[in-house]
Amino acid sequence: MPGFLYTDHYQLVMAQLYFRAGLHQHTVRFDHTFRSYPDYGTHQAGYAIAAGLGPLLEWMEQTRCRPEDIEVLRNQHNDRGDRLFGEDFLAWLLANGNFEPIQMWAVPEGRVVHPQAVMTAVEGPLAIAQILETSLLNQLNFSTLIATKASRVAEAGDGGTVLEFGLRRAQGYGSLQASRAALIGGAAFTSHVEASAAAGVPSKGTHAHSMVQVFMALGGTELDAFREYARVYPDACLLLVDTIDTLESGVPNAITVFEELRRAGHEPLGIRLDSGDLAHLAVRSAAMLDAAGFEAVGIVISSRLDELTIWQIRNQIVVEAPRYGVDPSKVLSRLSYGVGSALATSAGDPALDGVYKLVAISEGGEWRPAIKISNTLSKIANPGVKQVWRIMDDRGKATADVVALADETLSERPLLLHHATTADVSRYLTAEHISEMEPLLVPVREMTLGSPHEQLREARKRRQADLERLDPGVRRLVNPHLYHVSLSDRLYRLKQELVERYST
Amino acid sequence: MPGFLYTDHYQLVMAQLYFRAGLHQHTVRFDHTFRSYPDYGTHQAGYAIAAGLGPLLEWMEQTRCRPEDIEVLRNQHNDRGDRLFGEDFLAWLLANGNFEPIQMWAVPEGRVVHPQAVMTAVEGPLAIAQILETSLLNQLNFSTLIATKASRVAEAGDGGTVLEFGLRRAQGYGSLQASRAALIGGAAFTSHVEASAAAGVPSKGTHAHSMVQVFMALGGTELDAFREYARVYPDACLLLVDTIDTLESGVPNAITVFEELRRAGHEPLGIRLDSGDLAHLAVRSAAMLDAAGFEAVGIVISSRLDELTIWQIRNQIVVEAPRYGVDPSKVLSRLSYGVGSALATSAGDPALDGVYKLVAISEGGEWRPAIKISNTLSKIANPGVKQVWRIMDDRGKATADVVALADETLSERPLLLHHATTADVSRYLTAEHISEMEPLLVPVREMTLGSPHEQLREARKRRQADLERLDPGVRRLVNPHLYHVSLSDRLYRLKQELVERYST
Repeated sequence: MPGFLYTDHYQLVMAQLYFRAGLHQHTVRFDHTFRSYPDYGTHQAGYAIAAGLGPLLEWMEQTRCRPEDIEVLRNQHNDRGDRLFGEDFLAWLLANGNFEPIQMWAVPEGRVVHPQAVMTAVEGPLAIAQILETSLLNQLNFSTLIATKASRVAEAGDGGTVLEFGLRRAQGYGSLQASRAALIGGAAFTSHVEASAAAGVPSKGTHAHSMVQVFMALGGTELDAFREYARVYPDACLLLVDTIDTLESGVPNAITVFEELRRAGHEPLGIRLDSGDLAHLAVRSAAMLDAAGFEAVGIVISSRLDELTIWQIRNQIVVEAPRYGVDPSKVLSRLSYGVGSALATSAGDPALDGVYKLVAISEGGEWRPAIKISNTLSKIANPGVKQVWRIMDDRGKATADVVALADETLSERPLLLHHATTADVSRYLTAEHISEMEPLLVPVREMTLGSPHEQLREARKRRQADLERLDPGVRRLVNPHLYHVSLSDRLYRLKQELVERYST
Repeated sequence: MPGFLYTDHYQLVMAQLYFRAGLHQHTVRFDHTFRSYPDYGTHQAGYAIAAGLGPLLEWMEQTRCRPEDIEVLRNQHNDRGDRLFGEDFLAWLLANGNFEPIQMWAVPEGRVVHPQAVMTAVEGPLAIAQILETSLLNQLNFSTLIATKASRVAEAGDGGTVLEFGLRRAQGYGSLQASRAALIGGAAFTSHVEASAAAGVPSKGTHAHSMVQVFMALGGTELDAFREYARVYPDACLLLVDTIDTLESGVPNAITVFEELRRAGHEPLGIRLDSGDLAHLAVRSAAMLDAAGFEAVGIVISSRLDELTIWQIRNQIVVEAPRYGVDPSKVLSRLSYGVGSALATSAGDPALDGVYKLVAISEGGEWRPAIKISNTLSKIANPGVKQVWRIMDDRGKATADVVALADETLSERPLLLHHATTADVSRYLTAEHISEMEPLLVPVREMTLGSPHEQLREARKRRQADLERLDPGVRRLVNPHLYHVSLSDRLYRLKQELVERYST
């Protein structure tokens, strides 16, 4: 786990400036939001899945500025060779460099979240809240990105087991967060042993082509390798069948071994296909397995899968299976999906554009809203201390996330809502279209996170519940329907007022 | 730093199988290669920069299987609820789970590398070499990916300082490797404090918009914020000028403060532009700074930069500067580049397709070449124990990387070379086109890595030297000329023979 210096240099430069200006203990509020859904180029997300909060809070709890961190800062110099950080500031930092004074409000992990709506709010002394920015963004942006991708992959698989296999091509130690986020977002398991252990779930996997190659290089055959695997793992026998030739060698050899296993009182788990036309090979393998009396064994497909490839493969199976006398639904229901790089790196869009913006500063016990002007309205953070409300319509579906000031109750009917990023676009929601309203930001101090395994279980439940309340159009993999994120009337007017005041 | 279980589940499943089959101590050889250059969609790399070896070796040296790792494996079960790993295997793993018996040959960090040519060769006992696969790939694939991207960004910047700013949107803890690899590949500095400290270099950065916002929310102005910054950092004054309006407010206020600094005997460092039309604003800012007598101060540009954007911005400056009476070359020479997400995640292609393939297995003191058949020739790893030779032509430029068997000297003239991935395509290199030949794979035991800072310094030197010996066409950012990777005649014939023997 990285330490207190897991941050950008400029945070410390600013912290020292605040210290010198006597502003370092000033209470401020920062909001974390993301600006847009992941856009994978040929397809786009219509929702995101919040993730990363548990590990962030753990990191915040355990991390303090240590003497060796101070030593690093002591060795920073400007171009003239003078020290950049003074001893007065470093002494303060050593004593106060921890996140205890920070209060947070956050959307719990696993929940569906949308752009422009606050995901995390941070309140605390200016210098510390500023230093926290980078690591908070690093943790939450990436985990949310991967949980979102995993959710899409799981939706494409339509209930089939998703296995995250990305460690070898993941972005270095980012794999640790990627695997955990994938487990929250829709992967049932990961091959990543360390990440699985950290999350409190078993890891999964069987064997590689190299195992078959070893037996062949020593003068044996694929069948020898399969037999050895079945001997060692009689009750966990899942064979990779494409080392030589899937239909000519791999599947027939697997069936031979499966028959031997069955005679010895064991049931095989299945086969894995890792190359070639996976849809075609799944159909043909299923036909061969059925003919041999192994209708129940699974077929794991892997190799460059992502949500669109899975969707296409399933469609192809529906078309192709009848030609080989196979019931497509039976092929589909036996599929599992090993998804690697595309999942672990969110291929197509490897970074979520989450930002952390100063929205208010306390003075004399009062909050003063802060704003940064930009020519792009969507880049102007919403000022003030806020809450986000999710509105359910009469069908029990989520119809809008409304960003409001924290003391608003949104009880007016009809409820006036403003477009989050386009000025002068508004609409009214009448009483009959509002069945329920729920605040999304929860005080972190009221959260009981529990063990890693409990965190994962609860996050998975929240995702499932939120997806069920999401319109199917929003869940489409390609060109999803746009979910409404709105501003309350009071927030909208505050924002307009500040924009006018500070615009030149 | 992750531990021994930073690997895929199936590696341990196979290790136990090898243990049961008595094959776990068999000496084998695996090759690590990547299959293709990073392809960013609209542009592609024509070379890659090797990186990640230093941290991998450090990890290998420090990592051993601990009792708590064994406990994790003891808690793995099959679907019947039986334990997956036996006590016999676990006892062996506890005693032997380390990388001491592994020998490696590798291309040193910073060197230019190409697809299909072995980057790393691993020799050792089968079970341990198999377990190593995943973490080796995780470390080397990602670092090479990012060093490659950094090299492109630096080439686009044409000598201007590149600053890596990606931590906030990097892939979680992968940021640690991303920043180090960026420093090898072409970034002069990174904002990542922890990664900088680990690499033995200073981190860099100044301030964010939030600093200006704080002063404004407290009733002050941008000028107040700038003055405070100059007061605290009189000799490291670099001001972010786009919080309100770059040309109307930021640059004039910066000039005011710069004049005050100069009167007090200090020289300002420069300004940073982080939004808007960066090319236009750089030209206009340069004109304003020049008019005020600050011709020497730098202009840092940042905000969604990558190599193509930098290239475009530089081109636009060449066109636009004369309109404002500014010498384009003077604007270009004062630019630095803050590059974030695109660099830290290799946007466009976030994973290098590096693989680790069994190529030989020792039996009775003899190497038996191993091969995995595939319908795609480029996916068939080259069998046997090998070396890679870089051939320089009469201009002193690298003309081909030749993959050969380890005992070959490639002394024949003319030298027959085969295309690495297309059968029956060959050519002869005559003596006058070969000025020098250099083996790229170096025994790791003969490497002196030195401190992190020394590793970085040497890697940077190697990159510089290798780039100078690379044809300019290969270095093009878009549609680069294809570098030759070839097979020696003996290797080619061995491969063909094995393909024929094992193909069905």
